[in-house]
Amino acid sequence: MKFCSSCGAELIVAIPEGDQRERHVCQSCGDIHYQNPKIVVGCVTHWQNQVLLCRRAIEPRLGFWTMPAGFMENGETLKAGAERETFEECMARVSALELISVISIADINQVHCIFNAPMVNGEFSETSESSEVKLFHEQDIPWHDLAFRTVEVTLKHFFEQRRQGTQNPLIIDLGPR
Amino acid sequence: MKFCSSCGAELIVAIPEGDQRERHVCQSCGDIHYQNPKIVVGCVTHWQNQVLLCRRAIEPRLGFWTMPAGFMENGETLKAGAERETFEECMARVSALELISVISIADINQVHCIFNAPMVNGEFSETSESSEVKLFHEQDIPWHDLAFRTVEVTLKHFFEQRRQGTQNPLIIDLGPR
Repeated sequence: MKFCSSCGAELIVAIPEGDQRERHVCQSCGDIHYQNPKIVVGCVTHWQNQVLLCRRAIEPRLGFWTMPAGFMENGETLKAGAERETFEECMARVSALELISVISIADINQVHCIFNAPMVNGEFSETSESSEVKLFHEQDIPWHDLAFRTVEVTLKHFFEQRRQGTQNPLIIDLGPR
Repeated sequence: MKFCSSCGAELIVAIPEGDQRERHVCQSCGDIHYQNPKIVVGCVTHWQNQVLLCRRAIEPRLGFWTMPAGFMENGETLKAGAERETFEECMARVSALELISVISIADINQVHCIFNAPMVNGEFSETSESSEVKLFHEQDIPWHDLAFRTVEVTLKHFFEQRRQGTQNPLIIDLGPR
């Protein structure tokens, strides 16, 4: 971040009055440009006792498996974002979303909010973002070919909840690898 | 957002290739400037069966009561942010945070994540952000002078959880007033 998005002047890095952190500040128009964590939303969606996973067709982690998830957009709720991402990545419609995991990843400035959501029907397909989309029984999950640690811990919590008949979401922090 | 923060050129609004939404795009350097929802973190903190509330010394809602909360910063986890905001707003130290509410407010592009957190000791004080800080028994909560609806629904859920001995977080969306 080098230039002010409001007036185009060069930015400096300084601690604004009443603040305790360095920010990008415009000395021309006075605007302070804050940078904050982003939210990733997605779904562990399932049909007839199987979980739907997508093989990533794009970087990062091209070729590895993930649940459908992506950045939450302005103007939507967590659940609306999770439904949208699920449709965009594998053309599956979901309903009755229940929060399953909330994962803070401080070193990449992200919080992941993943929902447990049954598919509305058994329909899904590959997309430009997913080269392969497939339903997996628990024993067939490709644990060694998952794209991200958030996918692994969320899927494990999903199966654990199912075994125990509980609904408590997993609230954890993941540090750097 | 008018100018590119990377190169200073004027931005246009356009739908990038492979995207479905209008973004601020730089025709000079090609950067796409995404805007995403922000996370607010805070605590319902308590001591000897009373809840700690702060009377706001700043706008918006100056003079009204809130639990300590504010914008999550880059480089921190949800819990670290909630602990920091609680100390900044009322000088209270908290521990053993448990998620109590996750509230999407789509029309202002925010998600609020509030924790139930006992105070470590009974110490607190007013700050530049809080003109008065006070412990309240449930029957004395100033329900008609609360700053935000997120405060009201979270406090109600807190007391309901306490009556029922449950720990399930409240996951809701709040629409425009």
